[in-house]
Amino acid sequence: MSELRIISAAGIPEIKTGDDLGDIIIRACRKQGLDLRSGDVVVVKSKIVSKAEGRVVKIDDVVPSTLAKNVSQLLKKDSKSVEIVFSESKRIVRMVRGLCIAETRHGFVCANAGVDQSNFPAGYAGLLPLDPDASARRIRDKIQQKLGVDTAVIITDTFGRPWREGQVDVAIGVSGIKATRDYRGLKDPYGYELRVTEIAVADEIASAADLVMEKTRRTPVAVVRGYSYQKADGSARDLIRRPSRDLFR
Amino acid sequence: MSELRIISAAGIPEIKTGDDLGDIIIRACRKQGLDLRSGDVVVVKSKIVSKAEGRVVKIDDVVPSTLAKNVSQLLKKDSKSVEIVFSESKRIVRMVRGLCIAETRHGFVCANAGVDQSNFPAGYAGLLPLDPDASARRIRDKIQQKLGVDTAVIITDTFGRPWREGQVDVAIGVSGIKATRDYRGLKDPYGYELRVTEIAVADEIASAADLVMEKTRRTPVAVVRGYSYQKADGSARDLIRRPSRDLFR
Repeated sequence: MSELRIISAAGIPEIKTGDDLGDIIIRACRKQGLDLRSGDVVVVKSKIVSKAEGRVVKIDDVVPSTLAKNVSQLLKKDSKSVEIVFSESKRIVRMVRGLCIAETRHGFVCANAGVDQSNFPAGYAGLLPLDPDASARRIRDKIQQKLGVDTAVIITDTFGRPWREGQVDVAIGVSGIKATRDYRGLKDPYGYELRVTEIAVADEIASAADLVMEKTRRTPVAVVRGYSYQKADGSARDLIRRPSRDLFR
Repeated sequence: MSELRIISAAGIPEIKTGDDLGDIIIRACRKQGLDLRSGDVVVVKSKIVSKAEGRVVKIDDVVPSTLAKNVSQLLKKDSKSVEIVFSESKRIVRMVRGLCIAETRHGFVCANAGVDQSNFPAGYAGLLPLDPDASARRIRDKIQQKLGVDTAVIITDTFGRPWREGQVDVAIGVSGIKATRDYRGLKDPYGYELRVTEIAVADEIASAADLVMEKTRRTPVAVVRGYSYQKADGSARDLIRRPSRDLFR
């Protein structure tokens, strides 16, 4: 029998530009009697990372390009909001029926290149962190410095998927954990060699943590305890399919 | 603070055609002192469901079609194995470089139409259950009858995803839980109406449960405790994107 626990960290305050998320997470955990331990995975929604890092744009300040004006009707958005999505995109994957699926500069493929207005003040749009692995590392380093414990940190965002309804949380930044677990070459109980099985454990942890977070309340942090992960510097880049292996480019 | 626990059910024996999975799961849980409770979500890997339901094919007995012979080299599989994949497919989505992505008769889009040889005896291939919602319901009904507790049951399989490396577990059969949670029309703390957020909670639970299961050992059952889900008959069909809404058909 193995068991893991997923605990939401309540009491995270409204985050402002320049806030130290590591400090804030440590305080919130302590306040509810949750002592962070080595081996814990701290899962953080990208929204508060974007706020702390000032990755927030005042929509009125944006000057839309001609293309943004041209497609704003198709996307059912104002041209300034479209321009923000374009500024975050390095490739447009699909643009139809009110939707823009784009590849972000990091290489993530998602709706609106990760730009989102929910859970940001009215009139503002949030952008994904510039380097989510580095954001994860900073939080992890702070926990290490202050508490002397070696945790992993995963930054998450909510992505749709082709062919399936509904969205799930996935990992966009990783530190202290290998993002995938590779079973290739290992054998099943029948001696059959597992050839193609590489599990995206960082994505599974992101989805697991989302179960204790609520979209409409302020619980953007959770702790996964008891999961025996592979320690590594780690990077969410390991979760991005290389173009040469991508059947759906 | 909210918390959930994910507990693997050890000691599930080798499953044979005709086995009663509900009984077996109840026994395995009892043996390790895990008393199933109302509100628990019992997560079951599709492999043992396929075995119990006799959804296993002896590869040597299969007569390959001409198309199966023609494409066997492209797919780097023997023509009999290809024929099995074809028999489970209602549409081929991609066929390249050793890979066949197909839509199953249920409507799931996945590699090899869910046909898999790992964790089956040598020379045999496992097929997805014919009606995974019904499989989930039978297990749930048995737990209700024997223990008098109202659980949810989710049948899972391991799927790849476009654009992202690694596979994750998703829900292919659901009973007793609404597969998605709809936040549309609700407001965030800023009063912004959440318009497009529908979370695939059954998929997130499937991924969460996979974290305590091991691909190479016999732990195909886990219990998620403490998740406050929406009770419903439930169906994994709610997770299949309708063709009219599918940007990647």
